[in-house]
Amino acid sequence: MKRNNLTFITCDSSFEEADIVLFGAPYDGTTSFRPGTRFASNQVRVDSDGVETYSPYVDKDLEDKNVIDVGDVEFPFGNVDKAMDSIYDMTKSILNEGKKPMMIGGEHLVTLPQVKALSEKYDNIHILHFDAHADLRENYLGEELSHATVLRRVYDILGKDSISQFGIRSGTKDEFEFSKEHTYMEKFSLDTLSQRLLELKDKKIYITIDLDVLDPSIFPGTGTPEPGGVTFKELMNAIIQMDGLDIIGADIVELSPHYDTSGVSTAVACKVIREILCIM
Amino acid sequence: MKRNNLTFITCDSSFEEADIVLFGAPYDGTTSFRPGTRFASNQVRVDSDGVETYSPYVDKDLEDKNVIDVGDVEFPFGNVDKAMDSIYDMTKSILNEGKKPMMIGGEHLVTLPQVKALSEKYDNIHILHFDAHADLRENYLGEELSHATVLRRVYDILGKDSISQFGIRSGTKDEFEFSKEHTYMEKFSLDTLSQRLLELKDKKIYITIDLDVLDPSIFPGTGTPEPGGVTFKELMNAIIQMDGLDIIGADIVELSPHYDTSGVSTAVACKVIREILCIM
Amino acid sequence: MKRNNLTFITCDSSFEEADIVLFGAPYDGTTSFRPGTRFASNQVRVDSDGVETYSPYVDKDLEDKNVIDVGDVEFPFGNVDKAMDSIYDMTKSILNEGKKPMMIGGEHLVTLPQVKALSEKYDNIHILHFDAHADLRENYLGEELSHATVLRRVYDILGKDSISQFGIRSGTKDEFEFSKEHTYMEKFSLDTLSQRLLELKDKKIYITIDLDVLDPSIFPGTGTPEPGGVTFKELMNAIIQMDGLDIIGADIVELSPHYDTSGVSTAVACKVIREILCIM
Amino acid sequence: MKRNNLTFITCDSSFEEADIVLFGAPYDGTTSFRPGTRFASNQVRVDSDGVETYSPYVDKDLEDKNVIDVGDVEFPFGNVDKAMDSIYDMTKSILNEGKKPMMIGGEHLVTLPQVKALSEKYDNIHILHFDAHADLRENYLGEELSHATVLRRVYDILGKDSISQFGIRSGTKDEFEFSKEHTYMEKFSLDTLSQRLLELKDKKIYITIDLDVLDPSIFPGTGTPEPGGVTFKELMNAIIQMDGLDIIGADIVELSPHYDTSGVSTAVACKVIREILCIM
Amino acid sequence: MKRNNLTFITCDSSFEEADIVLFGAPYDGTTSFRPGTRFASNQVRVDSDGVETYSPYVDKDLEDKNVIDVGDVEFPFGNVDKAMDSIYDMTKSILNEGKKPMMIGGEHLVTLPQVKALSEKYDNIHILHFDAHADLRENYLGEELSHATVLRRVYDILGKDSISQFGIRSGTKDEFEFSKEHTYMEKFSLDTLSQRLLELKDKKIYITIDLDVLDPSIFPGTGTPEPGGVTFKELMNAIIQMDGLDIIGADIVELSPHYDTSGVSTAVACKVIREILCIM
Amino acid sequence: MKRNNLTFITCDSSFEEADIVLFGAPYDGTTSFRPGTRFASNQVRVDSDGVETYSPYVDKDLEDKNVIDVGDVEFPFGNVDKAMDSIYDMTKSILNEGKKPMMIGGEHLVTLPQVKALSEKYDNIHILHFDAHADLRENYLGEELSHATVLRRVYDILGKDSISQFGIRSGTKDEFEFSKEHTYMEKFSLDTLSQRLLELKDKKIYITIDLDVLDPSIFPGTGTPEPGGVTFKELMNAIIQMDGLDIIGADIVELSPHYDTSGVSTAVACKVIREILCIM
Repeated sequence: MKRNNLTFITCDSSFEEADIVLFGAPYDGTTSFRPGTRFASNQVRVDSDGVETYSPYVDKDLEDKNVIDVGDVEFPFGNVDKAMDSIYDMTKSILNEGKKPMMIGGEHLVTLPQVKALSEKYDNIHILHFDAHADLRENYLGEELSHATVLRRVYDILGKDSISQFGIRSGTKDEFEFSKEHTYMEKFSLDTLSQRLLELKDKKIYITIDLDVLDPSIFPGTGTPEPGGVTFKELMNAIIQMDGLDIIGADIVELSPHYDTSGVSTAVACKVIREILCIM
Repeated sequence: MKRNNLTFITCDSSFEEADIVLFGAPYDGTTSFRPGTRFASNQVRVDSDGVETYSPYVDKDLEDKNVIDVGDVEFPFGNVDKAMDSIYDMTKSILNEGKKPMMIGGEHLVTLPQVKALSEKYDNIHILHFDAHADLRENYLGEELSHATVLRRVYDILGKDSISQFGIRSGTKDEFEFSKEHTYMEKFSLDTLSQRLLELKDKKIYITIDLDVLDPSIFPGTGTPEPGGVTFKELMNAIIQMDGLDIIGADIVELSPHYDTSGVSTAVACKVIREILCIM
Repeated sequence: MKRNNLTFITCDSSFEEADIVLFGAPYDGTTSFRPGTRFASNQVRVDSDGVETYSPYVDKDLEDKNVIDVGDVEFPFGNVDKAMDSIYDMTKSILNEGKKPMMIGGEHLVTLPQVKALSEKYDNIHILHFDAHADLRENYLGEELSHATVLRRVYDILGKDSISQFGIRSGTKDEFEFSKEHTYMEKFSLDTLSQRLLELKDKKIYITIDLDVLDPSIFPGTGTPEPGGVTFKELMNAIIQMDGLDIIGADIVELSPHYDTSGVSTAVACKVIREILCIM
Repeated sequence: MKRNNLTFITCDSSFEEADIVLFGAPYDGTTSFRPGTRFASNQVRVDSDGVETYSPYVDKDLEDKNVIDVGDVEFPFGNVDKAMDSIYDMTKSILNEGKKPMMIGGEHLVTLPQVKALSEKYDNIHILHFDAHADLRENYLGEELSHATVLRRVYDILGKDSISQFGIRSGTKDEFEFSKEHTYMEKFSLDTLSQRLLELKDKKIYITIDLDVLDPSIFPGTGTPEPGGVTFKELMNAIIQMDGLDIIGADIVELSPHYDTSGVSTAVACKVIREILCIM
Repeated sequence: MKRNNLTFITCDSSFEEADIVLFGAPYDGTTSFRPGTRFASNQVRVDSDGVETYSPYVDKDLEDKNVIDVGDVEFPFGNVDKAMDSIYDMTKSILNEGKKPMMIGGEHLVTLPQVKALSEKYDNIHILHFDAHADLRENYLGEELSHATVLRRVYDILGKDSISQFGIRSGTKDEFEFSKEHTYMEKFSLDTLSQRLLELKDKKIYITIDLDVLDPSIFPGTGTPEPGGVTFKELMNAIIQMDGLDIIGADIVELSPHYDTSGVSTAVACKVIREILCIM
Repeated sequence: MKRNNLTFITCDSSFEEADIVLFGAPYDGTTSFRPGTRFASNQVRVDSDGVETYSPYVDKDLEDKNVIDVGDVEFPFGNVDKAMDSIYDMTKSILNEGKKPMMIGGEHLVTLPQVKALSEKYDNIHILHFDAHADLRENYLGEELSHATVLRRVYDILGKDSISQFGIRSGTKDEFEFSKEHTYMEKFSLDTLSQRLLELKDKKIYITIDLDVLDPSIFPGTGTPEPGGVTFKELMNAIIQMDGLDIIGADIVELSPHYDTSGVSTAVACKVIREILCIM
């Protein structure tokens, strides 16, 4: 008999054989409204038991992929720098072994250290960013590191024309102004994704899905629900369209499971993770 | 003064005058993920008080129908065979009196004994099956009687070309393969229902609605929520299209009300029951 | 240091400078199914902290408007006449100072005293009514003052051709019959709003939004959820279309926040209030 | 087959044979904080299925009693006088047939019409009142009929020395002053009940249990939770002590089941009802 | 990097070094009222992260014990015999390796196969049974294997004077009668435990704690809440008194975590497991 | 008309006349298990509407005290130093005006800056600390500023024999060892409080109540529920005993209202605040 393994469904490859490393980054230290994304990764593991491994959307089976779920990065709350370093170290270790990282947040700030690590390995990175919020503030209540500034900090690393944003429907007027000059942004919907992808064929693609891009009708379990989002079918279509890209890593963030006692938000996150893993 | 009657709204005909017999089959003994559909029938009765009897969808009033709600079938949990027999006996009694059965589940397995009883009375039965799940497994964890095998068992009774499935978006690869040869299946949506109905004009129609065919945004109160489902309007349109068919019986299954503290899922079930009763 | 002010976000103008007065009318005394709208106004104030002041829908910022949130009207429960009088007095005071009233219900009956006060100041009022329910009964369980009769009572004041109803999907057969002769009613959707608005150009417009016009998937926190409603995007589009009208007052009603532990319904209400204030 | 009967467990006597008539009075129209006691009676009926009929506390079995559950009194909300009249009529009918009334509230005001009807039949009535609140205000927000004035109105009918209050821990200073002259009041606990009962041997006893006399740890499902209440065991002991009294009627009030999603509060109410019925 | 291990806190010994094997038996197939104990074991593992390893009650640290958490037994629902066999096999394997079993239910029926396996290894077994329910029925709705019959079936194996029951406060009259002849039963409380233990000094002790022995105020997350139970402090005192016994195995059962959204019931279960492990 | 004031009930003195300044410190940035205490202060203000101003425990009325509720301290999350500074500044301002501070947390760390400010004004301070947790760690996951170290940091400021701890029932072995030499600690209960107070007559008393000292049966709405706590009555008795001390300030911390959908935990907090204000 062996110690209990609780992994995302069927992600039980050995590290050696794994092509993709799945891990949790349960940090929500800068969340300004409702915290709780720290509980996402374990809830997703527990509830993934209710999800089939086969995807009728992309006609692939997660059982045919080599994925290892290595558990969560650990850090104290209250010290944002240490948390960022710990995530950076995790991603770095994964990349050093020639594997691809897939991260379950946590708040959106966790994307920053993963992108930083990736930027040290790859040129020509392009971020496909799905979100309700622009996340482009220069700072938030005086802080440079925040869920509300994360894409601006990613911009600081990767520079102009490296970020495409979809589904954005909340932010300050300044953020929307900034996006006009510095990023590609589609407000409210994902409708132009397929055209945009034509222009990104040669890019190394990083996918970051803030699940609040979904309408809170289907994803209430999040810190700052923003009605007016995309449907699950629209997000699935987006993932189908991204199949075939040169994906170097991905994350899904901002599931706060305690705010959805029905469990539907976690079920949504499980399916999105399954689909992302299937196309990576 | 008389003992308290709690029936689904206005379903208080005498047995003699009733054309339709409504009953509950609160069995959830094979549910593999989240149980609780045993609470559906009584919750539906209590909350039906908040629903109008008039349907603006089909322009009919439930008060104009003769329906009796006779309460729930009783059985012990832990003995699937006894539960199946009890439901079979109930349906048989209803049919023997020349009335039509309308059943509130419980899990989907309760459809099997009702269809069995109907198949002993009618030839030429066709099942209109609305569901997120194919339910076509040969067995589930070694068991032949399961919510996940119920349509396969129905197939064993009725044979080829007797089942049309709509809205299916979850299952094993094998189930989707099986459907290609043995059933009519529309994945993800209900779009081809009207065409399909043209081919079923001479059939005795049985309608089984697993309410998880609906998107969990509108129906979170279910055991295994599967995002990507149909909207309530789409399901209403389907019911409007089925008006006029030769319907010999029906059921709605898989409402698990405790998983939806907002009560919306039960409100949805109430309206679907009202509409089905109106077109039967 | 000053006493704590808790206002709807940024609605902290002085009374003198204010163009719009926002207030709560937390009455739910005639609610027949699930009460609790009395908690709406304070919950909206608390949760508005999670909402941006800038609207990308109408490209306006609430910070640029002069609005004062003066708190709630007070009254005992159990005495409908006193409650009606208190609301009437509040609206009258606001109008006497040359300002516009924006009211947060409470059940729908609170619309009646506000319309009454407005009708004493303005001719030529037209009501734009968004709702799941017709609210056109002559009486309800013998009572003339009820959430289910409120538009009928408004009709008694304003007369024929003064009410346009959108999204209606529940009522008695009689209510739907009444509407054919006496109001403009679009069942189920908001699709004809833009055409209808062409005919109302010269009218003084009062907007009353029963938030249950929205589908309960996005707005479960209400007393009588009616599946089959409009999406948030459709309601936003309706508001965008109403920008530029001669709006003399407005209300949003029927948020019952305790029935939605996820907080999404309150987030929806906050955004609708922000948009209405932006276009008033 | 017969129409569904949903009664409190085993309370299915015929009216003729019944000694006790159980009914619901789902009125909460004057509730000033959190409403919802209107849902108590049906929830109690549904959940009583999880309760044994045998009481090890008083070593009696509810199956040995002749009780009929006749359902709920009906009335519109928003009209307190009509509601009071309907309850009065129900109690009057029960008394006219020589049976004892046991009522499930609703808010505490429902006790008033029942006591009024009883006072027309019996002299020498004494009220045993268990509650967190004194309910002795002359009026509440200007209203004479209110959950907060109900014992004062009972006092107006029955006069001095007719009310004994236990467990009281919340009220205005005036209410506590009033009780010193006009009622017997034990603050905080039930400790003097047995002594008090010695003085009430010849009285016709009416028991009114506002379940918020219990600590909200065991009874959170109520409108105005008041920590510091008695334990369930203490209340059971009180009921055991009241066994043998000349009880002419009883009620339990103020269960608001939607505020306790765990269902424990309803389980408590079910057991208290069982015990009261067993000793009546 | 290794696959994620999720164990009860600090129970991460190797199998070889382990003295105690902790496992889950997530079966709730015969539950007659509210199911959901199948979710207990994983919820306990996840939430044990919030619990200290040191116990100030028995002044021991779980880190000083050698325990391995091997995860859950697997079985289909709907087939009670298979489930019983799977648990029996697990316990048998543990005993064959000379280790002690500690099981997390599931419903109470899971105790039966574990006791059966132990009875094949040890003579002179005595069961210390903490519960709200007697669980002594000969059968339940015709079934011999049921949560309501489990101690009767244990009695069938072990015979007279082998069972001591504490805290019992619910059952049929027959069960209480049976206990007078065949078991030691203390109703309502644990007060005589210490005296009883004096008589059991030479026995092989098996501890089965149905957590509903606790008052539902502190343990609402269970299928059939029975108010009037013992406090957490009383249960802790009982465990302290059992320290030093010759304990051959134990279980805790009937945590149904979805019925307690506050998480307190799971926190209670975690602490009880910690204490039991510390004294084994 | 004036802007809406939402204060804790009746705490609406002018600043000039106020003797006590009530404020919120909604910081939960170092919370390691379940966050959410940031929502406590506003929830307490909203729900205080359901609480009487008169206390039958100490026979005082909050209306007779001069208290102003000045709202919440503001700070960004993710920067613990800034948060500490902001609270320190608030307390400093209050003390400079000769008034007493009463703070509503937030997590327990907020006590530190308030004590620091007080220590610069007063000698001879003694802390009365009510808590489930010792909070005496030297550091937590490497951090010196943490909810788990706060009393150790207070100790660093005030030195030996300046802290009395009651109700402690969770911590590492090291913390319990530390307390033996450096603080007065009563484990599990409050029983020795009255004796202890005899020794503290000449001290300037600061009261810090971590509400999780209460049993989670009555206070489930907290981050780390620890069963085995004191009852509400025991805490009320403690407060009564502290009446008459030379109290220089106080706080209550660790209410996390979203984890208690019944609202009972907030009701408890409201009453504790009322009592503390009454005896200050």
